[in-house]
Amino acid sequence: MAKAIQDLYPENLSHCYGCGRNNPEGYQLKTYLVGNETRATFTPEDKYTAIPGSVYGGLIASLLDCHGTGSAAAFLCQKEGISLEVGPIPVRCVTGSLKVDFKALTPMGEELELKGVLRSIEGRKVWVDMRLSARGIVCATGEILAIRLKEE
Amino acid sequence: MAKAIQDLYPENLSHCYGCGRNNPEGYQLKTYLVGNETRATFTPEDKYTAIPGSVYGGLIASLLDCHGTGSAAAFLCQKEGISLEVGPIPVRCVTGSLKVDFKALTPMGEELELKGVLRSIEGRKVWVDMRLSARGIVCATGEILAIRLKEE
Repeated sequence: MAKAIQDLYPENLSHCYGCGRNNPEGYQLKTYLVGNETRATFTPEDKYTAIPGSVYGGLIASLLDCHGTGSAAAFLCQKEGISLEVGPIPVRCVTGSLKVDFKALTPMGEELELKGVLRSIEGRKVWVDMRLSARGIVCATGEILAIRLKEE
Repeated sequence: MAKAIQDLYPENLSHCYGCGRNNPEGYQLKTYLVGNETRATFTPEDKYTAIPGSVYGGLIASLLDCHGTGSAAAFLCQKEGISLEVGPIPVRCVTGSLKVDFKALTPMGEELELKGVLRSIEGRKVWVDMRLSARGIVCATGEILAIRLKEE
């Protein structure tokens, strides 16, 4: 069984508030590669509201940001034949650019489902297309340009 | 002296985690209109890290999101001659689309400065261009399409 990509990052690169396993105060988002797409789920606490009843956009952008960099790392590993069963992996990406389109208000109290598909890889640049859904309805789409960090 | 735009929102639309004065657990970002630009500042707590030493992108996107919708409301008020000294104002915007370009790692432990300028207003749609700086260096730029809520 493949592990979450964030559980395979090197120890010193696992403190991200959004997805680092070494940040106990953070969201600890987990991204899994399933076939040719990536998946993550997250259920926001009530405090993350925007206008009453809907999730605030900053959290949605945050989830897409971390799912995006995680997806990029997963797709790079897939391309290079790097196992996702044992870490640490020699791949970690940061965000170059993120675009979020809000399609519908994201309801509070629901499990949000994130999916990602690879658009392209060019050297250290990885483009991933994403969507965030609740109850099967797409609430937001995201496009990320993720940049692979150089190995030290 | 003009108040922060978020302190002028109607009570029932002031719970946003990013900028709502009625959300004690949130960031409570405050956006001010100064001449023809908008300004806000924010100093992230240490937990909001990405890779060590830098602020995580989700927080940067969150700040640009709330500064963007606040800026849009401020520019609408300016256009329509609505005072920013007394609330509530009959203007509240939500995010239609947000794009963030990360130009440099955003250092931890610094006051971040956000600025916004109006690109255009077309009916209920408002486009705002933003930048986020630390120590005078632009770390991220943002573009938002904000949508004015219809008055109930």
